[in-house]
Amino acid sequence: MPFHAYAAHTARAALQPFAYEPPPLAPGEVEIAIDYCGICHSDVHLVDGEWGDFFPIVPGHEIIGSVVAGEGVPAGTRVGVGWQCGSCGTCEWCDEGEERLCPSSQATCMGHYGGFADRIRVDHRFAIPIPDGLDGASAAPLLCGGITVFTPLRRYAREGSRVAVVGIGGLGHLALRFASAMGCQVTAISTRPDKETEAKSFGAHHFLTGEPPAGAYDLILNTAHVAPPMDLYLRALRPKGVFCQLGAAAEPLVVSSFGLIVGSKTVSGSAIGSPGGIAEMLHFAAAHGIGAQVEVMPLERCNEALDRTRRNQARYRMVLARS
Amino acid sequence: MPFHAYAAHTARAALQPFAYEPPPLAPGEVEIAIDYCGICHSDVHLVDGEWGDFFPIVPGHEIIGSVVAGEGVPAGTRVGVGWQCGSCGTCEWCDEGEERLCPSSQATCMGHYGGFADRIRVDHRFAIPIPDGLDGASAAPLLCGGITVFTPLRRYAREGSRVAVVGIGGLGHLALRFASAMGCQVTAISTRPDKETEAKSFGAHHFLTGEPPAGAYDLILNTAHVAPPMDLYLRALRPKGVFCQLGAAAEPLVVSSFGLIVGSKTVSGSAIGSPGGIAEMLHFAAAHGIGAQVEVMPLERCNEALDRTRRNQARYRMVLARS
Repeated sequence: MPFHAYAAHTARAALQPFAYEPPPLAPGEVEIAIDYCGICHSDVHLVDGEWGDFFPIVPGHEIIGSVVAGEGVPAGTRVGVGWQCGSCGTCEWCDEGEERLCPSSQATCMGHYGGFADRIRVDHRFAIPIPDGLDGASAAPLLCGGITVFTPLRRYAREGSRVAVVGIGGLGHLALRFASAMGCQVTAISTRPDKETEAKSFGAHHFLTGEPPAGAYDLILNTAHVAPPMDLYLRALRPKGVFCQLGAAAEPLVVSSFGLIVGSKTVSGSAIGSPGGIAEMLHFAAAHGIGAQVEVMPLERCNEALDRTRRNQARYRMVLARS
Repeated sequence: MPFHAYAAHTARAALQPFAYEPPPLAPGEVEIAIDYCGICHSDVHLVDGEWGDFFPIVPGHEIIGSVVAGEGVPAGTRVGVGWQCGSCGTCEWCDEGEERLCPSSQATCMGHYGGFADRIRVDHRFAIPIPDGLDGASAAPLLCGGITVFTPLRRYAREGSRVAVVGIGGLGHLALRFASAMGCQVTAISTRPDKETEAKSFGAHHFLTGEPPAGAYDLILNTAHVAPPMDLYLRALRPKGVFCQLGAAAEPLVVSSFGLIVGSKTVSGSAIGSPGGIAEMLHFAAAHGIGAQVEVMPLERCNEALDRTRRNQARYRMVLARS
């Protein structure tokens, strides 16, 4: 039985119905019947050909569904799949539970058909059980957007940390919810004054549209896809503060040596999370009632939904649902 | 009795004999009779007016001497003083032993007369006892150069870490010695092929003059005062690797977002160390027989010695000695 998906065949082309026969179910793989798939900016970059020629591309890597076949996770289990769907399992990074850093990492929708589909097959280690109590549609964006902000928050923030979140979109609104639930003092920074009320509803204690004050934050998460004026943002860090870039900005960050040395500051990047981190994040989300604020559309309207993400119109994450 | 020092009165002027009456010894201060004072590139920047107008400037912040008066450290104790000679003692950073980050930090030779002198007075908390067994002249550069490389090594490296040291000068040769003593796998990177033999004698296991290989290092310490091609150096890091800038390069570091995000890499800066860290570093140095390789000149020849540092001719650190 072929899987029924939607695929882009050339850069910036509309997605079209695309049936494909998956390879035989491999040992350790599971087959998942997909209920929901969130849309991430990475999907737009891929479909628009900005990250290379991987066509035909079936986008989608924020997947929620149920195991229907295979081994490693019992049939009927509700699971999620994120950006990564496979790794070697034997390298030093896999050994230490940092599968996201495996040099043989397999992406869910680059060189593999993704979640804009009725079914998918993945290594069972990357099919993470979804705790009861999480709504499927609003949990879907946690699998990529959620873990992308949760990983640096867990690494760099603790209760009482002063955290600024730059860019209040798919990632940003989840960062506000997680940071607030962790007991941080949270500031939302946006160019859009009309987002203040919602940002505060997501957990922001403060809202800024202008220049950040000096020496104010232990951690700045930049979820925007642009490189900000780094002198200003390094100055906004407290001593030993961390600026963490999450959005894949095309232009470089221009960082002064003195800005780093004085106050011993850090500029870092962070990519997704490993299965153990995703499981922890999902339990944290269930315990604190955290999900994405989503607009749900049926899979058949994937072009319209993708375009809302492309135009930054999603409030705050588009999710496709099985029809 | 006035103190006898050497001071610069205008930018790039030769240092001249300079006698000054210190203010009365304050509570908690000690007076130190100086035996040795190392010369750091910061002294050159200060004397050359590159960091602002603090004239007259008595340079020198790698001081070894003996306590001769005051309270908090017994008279006769051999002590060292580095870049910092005072802090508020009450802020959150002072409270947690991170006095180097105190907003009221007092520098030893900016707005205070430094160590090119026969005596100096400082807050006793910044007069760190020197363990027996450390030679005074070769211990002097540990007080700034040594702690500047020790702090990020302690923070980011552990036994077995793959550490690259860029720039084999005053800081770099100490970084090789400390990293090697910590059990790291150490690579020296220099533009000067003639430094290979000495670099290996300092503890480098490998020596490179060209491009660093991809995915090779957990930690890169850049002791050079220039910004390197960051794409190359981020690529040279292993996943979760750290590039740490120690030299005060005038030009910015140009850092790609993707280079940071893929592999979750970090670019940081580090400044000196706090008294607790300096004490730990000195004990580590004593236990492992680590000191700087120095050229010693009498204090009267401070202009000649400063000029050797200015021209990067020191092998590997200039130290002035009481005549």
